[in-house]
Amino acid sequence: MNSLQKKILTDGTVLPGNILKVDSFLNHQIDIGLLKDMGKDFYELFKSKNITKILTVEASGIAIACYTAEHFKVPVVFAKKGRHKNVGSDVFTAEVFSFTKGTSYEIAVSKLYLKPDDRILIIDDFLANGQAVLGLQKIINEAGAVLCGAGIAITKAFQPGEKFLLDAGIDVKSLAAIESMENGNIVFRD
Amino acid sequence: MNSLQKKILTDGTVLPGNILKVDSFLNHQIDIGLLKDMGKDFYELFKSKNITKILTVEASGIAIACYTAEHFKVPVVFAKKGRHKNVGSDVFTAEVFSFTKGTSYEIAVSKLYLKPDDRILIIDDFLANGQAVLGLQKIINEAGAVLCGAGIAITKAFQPGEKFLLDAGIDVKSLAAIESMENGNIVFRD
Repeated sequence: MNSLQKKILTDGTVLPGNILKVDSFLNHQIDIGLLKDMGKDFYELFKSKNITKILTVEASGIAIACYTAEHFKVPVVFAKKGRHKNVGSDVFTAEVFSFTKGTSYEIAVSKLYLKPDDRILIIDDFLANGQAVLGLQKIINEAGAVLCGAGIAITKAFQPGEKFLLDAGIDVKSLAAIESMENGNIVFRD
Repeated sequence: MNSLQKKILTDGTVLPGNILKVDSFLNHQIDIGLLKDMGKDFYELFKSKNITKILTVEASGIAIACYTAEHFKVPVVFAKKGRHKNVGSDVFTAEVFSFTKGTSYEIAVSKLYLKPDDRILIIDDFLANGQAVLGLQKIINEAGAVLCGAGIAITKAFQPGEKFLLDAGIDVKSLAAIESMENGNIVFRD
């Protein structure tokens, strides 16, 4: 069992509606020792892929992406949500549908920071319906770069997102793939 | 001259209207080596203050806060922008007026992660009008915690924010305090 899985069991809480709260160590308060372990674990999963850049979406993905990028010795780029004037107009964009909120939002990455010779690893905190990663894939395709994989901290394997990404040809790997959390009892895959 | 100041001179660009673009290394693409240096520099500035927690605002502040927290061996808490249902209802909030956008937004921190015995260091990427830090100060006061200082990456010292914070009794220290950037020529204080 890796550090994230252990932390989820000790400090995560399950709320009604299959909501896993990880606010105390990942999404609101951040445990830096855990981040470091997660960065190392993601590196081990993707180190053979000659990654040149880590791509994530603001805000919760940023810290995890940085501690992963440290091992690859590459920069992080984070897609901005909503229409940000200050990104400039020369951007790749994608629409992302949020099942939680029932609305779409736009993500944008400046064309300056994604190039055809880039080999990209996507890092994100949660995978449920997979729409954010599919949006990032569209952006990577538009840039002509290569999507080498998606490293997800916590995957709700009982929701459809993971299958969507695998069907889209993405090499998805998760640090904590949750098979079920009935009655607050979290069961990891493997 | 520290790493951030050097990077601003080599890779920053000044746009009309006194806008400093640091997208290529801090606010959109992130240079991890630079972050590490900045974290060390912030630690040196505040290491005598017995900090127990780093507080920042999503999104650009998060990575800088994490690399600073690493040295203090304390957690990061990032305030969420807007009304986030998933933070829960038991939150400290503050309204922050954005001079750039001409509107206010709300920042929120769960009461679980700020306690009266906390000694807080605020970390943020930019200081111009100081409203975000004043909002965080209000939240820290409501929590009954102690605000020990504010570490700012880039301060536009020709705008009023720094004086607002000093007048509010906050120990503000900046890695790069910019006195002027007329005609694209960046001049640091000191």
